[in-house]
Amino acid sequence: MGPGPSDVNPRILEAMSRPTIGHLDPMFVQMMDEMKGLLRYAFQTDYDLAMPVSAPGSAGMETCFVNLVEPGDKVVVCQNGVFGGRMKENVERCGATAVMVEDEWGRAVDVNKVEEALKANPDAKILAFVHAETSTGAMSDAKALAGLARQHDCLTIADTVTSLGGCELKVGEWGLDAVYSGTQKCLSCVPGLSPVTFSERALDVVKNRRHRVQSWFLDLNLVLGYWGSGGKRAYHHTAPVNTLYALHEALVLLQEEGVENAWTRHRNHHEALKAGFEAMGLNFVVPEGERLPQLNAITIPEGVDDAAVRTRLLEEYNLEIGAGLGALAGRVWRVGLMGFACNRTNVLNCLGALDAVLSDMGAKIDAGRAVEAAMACYREQA
Amino acid sequence: MGPGPSDVNPRILEAMSRPTIGHLDPMFVQMMDEMKGLLRYAFQTDYDLAMPVSAPGSAGMETCFVNLVEPGDKVVVCQNGVFGGRMKENVERCGATAVMVEDEWGRAVDVNKVEEALKANPDAKILAFVHAETSTGAMSDAKALAGLARQHDCLTIADTVTSLGGCELKVGEWGLDAVYSGTQKCLSCVPGLSPVTFSERALDVVKNRRHRVQSWFLDLNLVLGYWGSGGKRAYHHTAPVNTLYALHEALVLLQEEGVENAWTRHRNHHEALKAGFEAMGLNFVVPEGERLPQLNAITIPEGVDDAAVRTRLLEEYNLEIGAGLGALAGRVWRVGLMGFACNRTNVLNCLGALDAVLSDMGAKIDAGRAVEAAMACYREQA
Repeated sequence: MGPGPSDVNPRILEAMSRPTIGHLDPMFVQMMDEMKGLLRYAFQTDYDLAMPVSAPGSAGMETCFVNLVEPGDKVVVCQNGVFGGRMKENVERCGATAVMVEDEWGRAVDVNKVEEALKANPDAKILAFVHAETSTGAMSDAKALAGLARQHDCLTIADTVTSLGGCELKVGEWGLDAVYSGTQKCLSCVPGLSPVTFSERALDVVKNRRHRVQSWFLDLNLVLGYWGSGGKRAYHHTAPVNTLYALHEALVLLQEEGVENAWTRHRNHHEALKAGFEAMGLNFVVPEGERLPQLNAITIPEGVDDAAVRTRLLEEYNLEIGAGLGALAGRVWRVGLMGFACNRTNVLNCLGALDAVLSDMGAKIDAGRAVEAAMACYREQA
Repeated sequence: MGPGPSDVNPRILEAMSRPTIGHLDPMFVQMMDEMKGLLRYAFQTDYDLAMPVSAPGSAGMETCFVNLVEPGDKVVVCQNGVFGGRMKENVERCGATAVMVEDEWGRAVDVNKVEEALKANPDAKILAFVHAETSTGAMSDAKALAGLARQHDCLTIADTVTSLGGCELKVGEWGLDAVYSGTQKCLSCVPGLSPVTFSERALDVVKNRRHRVQSWFLDLNLVLGYWGSGGKRAYHHTAPVNTLYALHEALVLLQEEGVENAWTRHRNHHEALKAGFEAMGLNFVVPEGERLPQLNAITIPEGVDDAAVRTRLLEEYNLEIGAGLGALAGRVWRVGLMGFACNRTNVLNCLGALDAVLSDMGAKIDAGRAVEAAMACYREQA
């Protein structure tokens, strides 16, 4: 129950361990085509370009930036946690300028400040933001930000690493342009791939660049020779065949459940976990209404040894929760409720274990009430 | 029996399907430390930096170039197949100049021409070459090339994607500086990772760059916060946990066999396959003495339909062999004998199947003799 990788469904582990076949084998190519359709469903879009980058989410982020940003460009970057800072690094390494819109860690991106920044920078080409900030648990209004970007004739780059499959995400309806995600969060697949989708207008920008993309490995003009539409599958790099089996199975599972049902499931278990945390007297970092159901950041009670608690949870309860990152290091815990791991057993185990360990270590909490509070919440939902 | 991915040992598939744990879990961190030692053994080096890049071999190549090359640098690049051309692309995308040393496809890199190029370009910073050219089956003299580079005060970047575990490779003794490989060739692991190793002097260059590395994802100054020595494992990106289980198991298998024994095994099965091809009257692309045992490129007999033969082998014999790439497309087949797939069963099945299909399609070969020729070779070896 950390911030990812989440627990992987055994069906996915089984699929991944099937014999490796060639990345140009006709059966594999057929699976690739299916996967593109399944990704469109997960992203809720009809964009033609929907494919997994053959590397983790950070490489998905880099794919969006190196393909869309050219030297001298200006990009408005929203930062309200770790990953907005990583976006800034990407922009600068492309030889472009990042105009930062800073928000407090633990808050959603302030749409009004973004509007001001876009008005003040009419030459901005791209608006980049994190939909679901994994470092804080804050959810930003991707729909409103996408609308603003269109008004100001900007492309959007959106980080949906933690949102895909875990909370409402409608790439097509909202009009997001370049969207990347990860496999190891709410898809509950193994880590190592980054699903991406690009709108037609984003792809036009990629195809009409003045400079070559600085990364050969991530250059979509080349990668699409393998993953693009048009039937021919030309070798670019050797695809991670078995991890792609795993992602295919994860996407089939999401389709079986229904993506809206998955969003509801995350919301429901989050409500129960929240009831338990509140009964214990633990406080959320993010205000109600801006919280991600799948990533629950809570403030570490005063006087409690962060690492000691996490070690005891791991050793005594086989339970991993996440430490704080960046500005929140040592100040918060991050409890993931992602994909396959988002279930009642985990919610109750986490609350019981945390209650027991914190009580035992003398923390000032309302002990012994968390599990019952969560159960009451589940009864209400039923 | 294509040019990779090769067949994966079931032990590796089993290891990969174990439950996913966190990339900062103490047990996982311990596995990372073991893996670094196992990689040093596989590469035959004592360089401190030995780690897998979290993406396929092409990203390992890019890791070497983006970390060592800066804008304005000059790099001597040897090209005798597809992958030297990819190196040129990498150099240019780093804003540097590639001085090309071209050799015929199917031949080893000409050491004399390289020496001339180094003399003519005393300001060259790096010599880059492919040890085992997967597109042609040619093996170049990495030891001699590394020696030349040192004489001319150049760093080396060496592509060992297909050589690692399949033929002699002594990174430390030969003094190679930045070496990348793949997991899906002679390690017989699943595709998706790229083992790399850097000498101290290469790492010094990375640490003392004038410009930031253009890729955030591949910047070793950041990646080594997670993979480097010194105990602390700071989050950079989410490691591909399950694929790393697989690589760990592949490296344990190599250690169990002994790396020299693995080289001998590849050589022996290559000799048998060669005896069979020659009995059939098929010609190797690469002259004897420059051939890789693990990648056997043979000229397609005149009048034979390339794709039709490969389709029949796949459909009737469940056998994949590789098509030609680049300049050799449509002119050659590439038959891999890599790692777990390098065994007597595969050699005999391949010869028998190819003999049958070519005969049936009316090709001018010496039919019905290949399998016996291979068997005779095995008897001699015994």
